[in-house]
Amino acid sequence: MKSIDPWGSELAEDYGKIVQQFGLEEFTPKLFPKPNRIMRRGVVFAGRDLKPISNAIKNKEKFYVLTGIMPTAERIHFGTKMVIENVRYFQENGAQAYVLIADLEAMATRGVSLEEARKRALDFHIPAYIALGLDPKKTTFYFQSENKKVMHLAFEFAKKITLNEFKAIYGIADPGRIMSAVLQAGDMLFPQLEQRMPGIIPVGIDQDPHIRLCRDIIARTKSKYNFTPISSIYLKFTPSLDGEMKMSKSKPESMIELPEDTKSALRKMKNAKTGGRESIEMQRKLGGEPEKCMVFEMFKQHLVEDDKELDNVYKTCKAGTLLCGEDKQHACAYMESFMDNFIAQMEAARKRADRLKFITFK
Amino acid sequence: MKSIDPWGSELAEDYGKIVQQFGLEEFTPKLFPKPNRIMRRGVVFAGRDLKPISNAIKNKEKFYVLTGIMPTAERIHFGTKMVIENVRYFQENGAQAYVLIADLEAMATRGVSLEEARKRALDFHIPAYIALGLDPKKTTFYFQSENKKVMHLAFEFAKKITLNEFKAIYGIADPGRIMSAVLQAGDMLFPQLEQRMPGIIPVGIDQDPHIRLCRDIIARTKSKYNFTPISSIYLKFTPSLDGEMKMSKSKPESMIELPEDTKSALRKMKNAKTGGRESIEMQRKLGGEPEKCMVFEMFKQHLVEDDKELDNVYKTCKAGTLLCGEDKQHACAYMESFMDNFIAQMEAARKRADRLKFITFK
Repeated sequence: MKSIDPWGSELAEDYGKIVQQFGLEEFTPKLFPKPNRIMRRGVVFAGRDLKPISNAIKNKEKFYVLTGIMPTAERIHFGTKMVIENVRYFQENGAQAYVLIADLEAMATRGVSLEEARKRALDFHIPAYIALGLDPKKTTFYFQSENKKVMHLAFEFAKKITLNEFKAIYGIADPGRIMSAVLQAGDMLFPQLEQRMPGIIPVGIDQDPHIRLCRDIIARTKSKYNFTPISSIYLKFTPSLDGEMKMSKSKPESMIELPEDTKSALRKMKNAKTGGRESIEMQRKLGGEPEKCMVFEMFKQHLVEDDKELDNVYKTCKAGTLLCGEDKQHACAYMESFMDNFIAQMEAARKRADRLKFITFK
Repeated sequence: MKSIDPWGSELAEDYGKIVQQFGLEEFTPKLFPKPNRIMRRGVVFAGRDLKPISNAIKNKEKFYVLTGIMPTAERIHFGTKMVIENVRYFQENGAQAYVLIADLEAMATRGVSLEEARKRALDFHIPAYIALGLDPKKTTFYFQSENKKVMHLAFEFAKKITLNEFKAIYGIADPGRIMSAVLQAGDMLFPQLEQRMPGIIPVGIDQDPHIRLCRDIIARTKSKYNFTPISSIYLKFTPSLDGEMKMSKSKPESMIELPEDTKSALRKMKNAKTGGRESIEMQRKLGGEPEKCMVFEMFKQHLVEDDKELDNVYKTCKAGTLLCGEDKQHACAYMESFMDNFIAQMEAARKRADRLKFITFK
């Protein structure tokens, strides 16, 4: 089995193949009530053990959704946005939402002090997550470095895996990665210490090794803990604006951050790769290729909420009636509105940050 | 360089060779004022960076001595006793003494719950350590699982070493051992978080990999922490009573535990290997061989405090005037007195256990 390094930034494009190789379930929006934009459009493309989550929603039983904040970055990106939108979806459908601040990993991997990580999380990341739709009153936040139970689980879990098993899952093994991985497994199972229940973790496919390791650990600790196996849901990457890889800092001109200065964001949108033909004449005649268009991808993943509108963009592009210039103008208008709204929401969320539901530890 | 696995139980006998191979300093009792019994008799055979400790004692500067309790065992053994005697020596000579209870490692390696580990440490190990001479009023105790700072250091340190470096030091690497090792490095440096100062760790040579790893980590984190390199002092093993290996549970008849039922302890002493000759006549003629005698080894390491008395045993044995039977009678008398006293001291220490100086963590 091919292993994807969750610390790398390789683009995994052939999602069908990944579903097979990793033994995932193909995602179908029918599983969940009122699927969100990215579920409906196949941006959510796979999962593991989705049935227990589906059942928990239908039967109004307890379950949880969990994600983390890595407080090293100054900004977040569109990939994070999609994760949060899924956390929000499950939260709105009855899940207890947990957001951990990975300050311990930030210290260990990037040398960011715990104080600095705390400040960044409170000033930026948590308000950003709230701006993207998390309900702060219903979300439980904690700092990894303060959660002794998570640290204890991490130390305990380390004994449950061999080096070769770790290598088989991650393709690579070193002390730092091992510590991060068992810490993440601790985070993923922490909500179950009080009560066993299904939990869902929305991730990019590059994070699947963490999910697999956690599921292996659940199996290994069955007699002691009997944790309910965690479920996961996989999101396609948001591609870079030149279409060549996943959106990444390594190509700043092809990446839009959250937040980003509107002028800069619009300039990048204008330079995005489209599915346009060599000439206007050709495009009128043959129609555009929205499948290859990064502007269309941004519409689909992020900017256009209404399915009919998206469908109309697709059809008029295909028909050669919508040209790239006009299309980009729409995209820029959407982007400007999104970014302005995001920044305003963040400002508002900052003011509410003191009313967050933080776990406090003895 | 040969690596000794601190988790194994191989006997390292050729101490001279070890000093060379591991790049240790040979120990000389002149380094320290009023050296204790095991220092004077070469049972302490080597060290690392002993000069800063020697200077701290002479100049009455701050330094610390540290050891750990592994609360899995029901009893302790004579090797532990010597470690505690050295901790006591440095404590009496001005060191701040730290004793950590490795409940997190006990949970991780042996599946002992934190509650159970706490109970065992309070009921048995801590009173035993006090019975062996630690001053409870001057000793700082803490539970690893409660010490967030130690756990944070462990996670941070893991990123500072590669898998190959770990293998080079330990001869073996797996996630459990890695976690234990970085946790121990965290423990060893925890006393320096408040103030940089020399610190000495008395260990058996099998624990040297932990010392080397910690010293490597100190070098790697110099720019951030600038920890003072830790010093260490190495004790010879107490041999099994048949003289074939270090005293170990794998040979229960050749091992005396602390505490052990006096009858059982005396029976084992009576069966100990001596340096006696084939017949009494031969022994009268040639003299005995105290160098090969486990009874003499017990006298030297543990039972006879007075150097002159020990010297007298040696000489009369060599001269053939002291025979093994009589010698063992003395040994049994000493052992009985030691064991009775130890048990009484432990009982007394138990009653004082609530007055210990435990670190409490927020």
